[in-house]
Amino acid sequence: MLIVKKFGGSSVADKERIFNVASRCVEEYQKGNDVIVVLSAMGDTTDELLEKANDINPNASKRELDMLLTTGEQVSVSLMAMAINSLGIPAISLNAFQVEMHSTSRYGNARFKRIDSERIQHEIDSRKIVIVTGFQGVNKYEDYTTLGRGGSDTSAVAIAAALHADACEIYTDVEGIYTADPRIVPNAKKMKEISYDEMLELASLGAKVLHNRCVEMAKKYGVQLIVRSSLNRAEGTIVREGSRMEKLLVSGVATDKNTARISVIGIEDKPGVAFRIFNVLAKNHINVDIILQSVGRDGTKDISFTVAEDDIQDALKVLEENKDTLTIREIKHREDVAKLSIVGAGMMSNPGVAAQMFEALFTAGVNINMISTSEIRITVLIDERDMDRAMVAVHDGFGLGD
Amino acid sequence: MLIVKKFGGSSVADKERIFNVASRCVEEYQKGNDVIVVLSAMGDTTDELLEKANDINPNASKRELDMLLTTGEQVSVSLMAMAINSLGIPAISLNAFQVEMHSTSRYGNARFKRIDSERIQHEIDSRKIVIVTGFQGVNKYEDYTTLGRGGSDTSAVAIAAALHADACEIYTDVEGIYTADPRIVPNAKKMKEISYDEMLELASLGAKVLHNRCVEMAKKYGVQLIVRSSLNRAEGTIVREGSRMEKLLVSGVATDKNTARISVIGIEDKPGVAFRIFNVLAKNHINVDIILQSVGRDGTKDISFTVAEDDIQDALKVLEENKDTLTIREIKHREDVAKLSIVGAGMMSNPGVAAQMFEALFTAGVNINMISTSEIRITVLIDERDMDRAMVAVHDGFGLGD
Repeated sequence: MLIVKKFGGSSVADKERIFNVASRCVEEYQKGNDVIVVLSAMGDTTDELLEKANDINPNASKRELDMLLTTGEQVSVSLMAMAINSLGIPAISLNAFQVEMHSTSRYGNARFKRIDSERIQHEIDSRKIVIVTGFQGVNKYEDYTTLGRGGSDTSAVAIAAALHADACEIYTDVEGIYTADPRIVPNAKKMKEISYDEMLELASLGAKVLHNRCVEMAKKYGVQLIVRSSLNRAEGTIVREGSRMEKLLVSGVATDKNTARISVIGIEDKPGVAFRIFNVLAKNHINVDIILQSVGRDGTKDISFTVAEDDIQDALKVLEENKDTLTIREIKHREDVAKLSIVGAGMMSNPGVAAQMFEALFTAGVNINMISTSEIRITVLIDERDMDRAMVAVHDGFGLGD
Repeated sequence: MLIVKKFGGSSVADKERIFNVASRCVEEYQKGNDVIVVLSAMGDTTDELLEKANDINPNASKRELDMLLTTGEQVSVSLMAMAINSLGIPAISLNAFQVEMHSTSRYGNARFKRIDSERIQHEIDSRKIVIVTGFQGVNKYEDYTTLGRGGSDTSAVAIAAALHADACEIYTDVEGIYTADPRIVPNAKKMKEISYDEMLELASLGAKVLHNRCVEMAKKYGVQLIVRSSLNRAEGTIVREGSRMEKLLVSGVATDKNTARISVIGIEDKPGVAFRIFNVLAKNHINVDIILQSVGRDGTKDISFTVAEDDIQDALKVLEENKDTLTIREIKHREDVAKLSIVGAGMMSNPGVAAQMFEALFTAGVNINMISTSEIRITVLIDERDMDRAMVAVHDGFGLGD
């Protein structure tokens, strides 16, 4: 078997942790498996490098920032190779130039285009553990790029795809994917398995274990992901194409308080107005989530929608500037709201699920502001102060706990 | 004009010094010149990285050490690009992969084979200051290599050669090459110019401003070197093919106390014995310097020679192990010796020079143990305690001072 293992920065923050990772890799290797390890920069290295850059030039070009930041992973991988070597096992570290991890040109937020498997394959064939820098690529100008948030996970999946690995293990500080956040819902259960689509919905809804980019790529190339703990040997959660014999209607509950609601009041009730509002927001790179449109009355209507809390100031500014063109009478907003979602592959074919969710919320006295649904998800917008209570209620309502 | 400027680690050790270097480069650029900057790792970075490696694995492979160490220069060059950018001038940093600085395979002590000028030329053509990582290359396996001691100087010369630069300026903490060490000979004079060959002799004799590898490469490709201070604007010393109108017989005096003398006593006085002694030393990578062979007597003879003080234990061990085969009766050694040399292009065509040197030493009461000469150099082995006094005497004897 060929296994790709990805460890984050905190898993290689010091000598002890480096050797912890090294031992796990050696263990896998000694089972007779081929092992590729993808690493992030050690501990706070990336932040420290950014601080150095900021001290020299607060407006440093993204190209030079990437040149600087990529040294972080190169330090991790070379030290890991030394650690594994000292345990008596051959190992070799490779950076994005050596692996030829071709990416788009965009510095600071590149995407992989193509990964040459030749060098890694060659090293694997000579029975070495191969350690590759995560988070970084090389663009068509032969410059380093970095991948932005969740980059190392994506590197691991991209390499697993290119090498046709049997599994891609993402090591984290949690044991896997849970039916709800265990810090809030004490009886939340670790899932044995979850589909890519469910994972995508959960990730985008605030279960921050895996980034969407990584799951999307895993889905696209059929890479089996395993989320597990770097601290213990517990079995993790497998993320793959849905194939469970016994499908749960609802697999998990997720919340996200990084959301805010904007209401634009009294706009003209004629075709194209809503389009123009969302168009002007999109042009300003503001993503809109749940949308609720009132029925027209007196020739006007209201539209409410949610945006990420980080975008709220930009969104309000853009709307204010275009108030007249967009025929907006008034703009209101609330930041003390949160999203609560249930996710499950078998959900939409069973119309009782939404009712069951609403009942659980009603019984707990939680007010629902907005509702949005997808193939495998039902999301409600609620008051932020109700969030934890609502999560417990819905989790219990579907009997997800242990 | 195209100027290559090389700055060492201490010249980029902190923010202030980085900006000092940045300003000098910008100044050159604003004269209308094209500028390539070659940098070492900041301050003690390389030592700190080595320490980290040693903590993980004291027997780390040289391949992984090079992978680790090369991050040091990459940090320097990216920060320098940011600094120059912040002064309003376009700049770009490049590593050994980007420049394609092809080297031999030997990790930790590689040599350049070929440098592709294309990428640098392209960036120069778009009027950027180009900042290149010194000390590192890429070998045929597409792995990083480092060049060993004096590596960054050699990188600068190699780039100057590949790009046909008009000059290669090596910035140091001294103002240039002196007729003798100014700390010992107060009236030592800075030379305006010196030939490659003279510089080579001086470098190998302990005037540690430039490494031989760098001077050899400059000579081979006809790169004009300028040694000057990173701390002030004083004119430095030009190193180029001898072309001075008025040639000084002797251009400088150098000393080297990193030397030790070994005498092997009572070896068989027949052909091949001396050869076998030096052969066994060479096989053990011990370089032998001045050799003095006594006239045979009673069928035996003695051979004395000098080795670097660092090699003395190895040399003694090797000789002891082969004592019988080499027919050695006794091995003696002294470490309290030093070499004193005069160097000058016009020297050997003037037989009076040696006599003049010996007279100066005699007058100063300095005893001469051994003598060795080359085309442009006369070296004597003296007691280490006489070294400074001897240097002053010889320097005065040839009237080299101000």
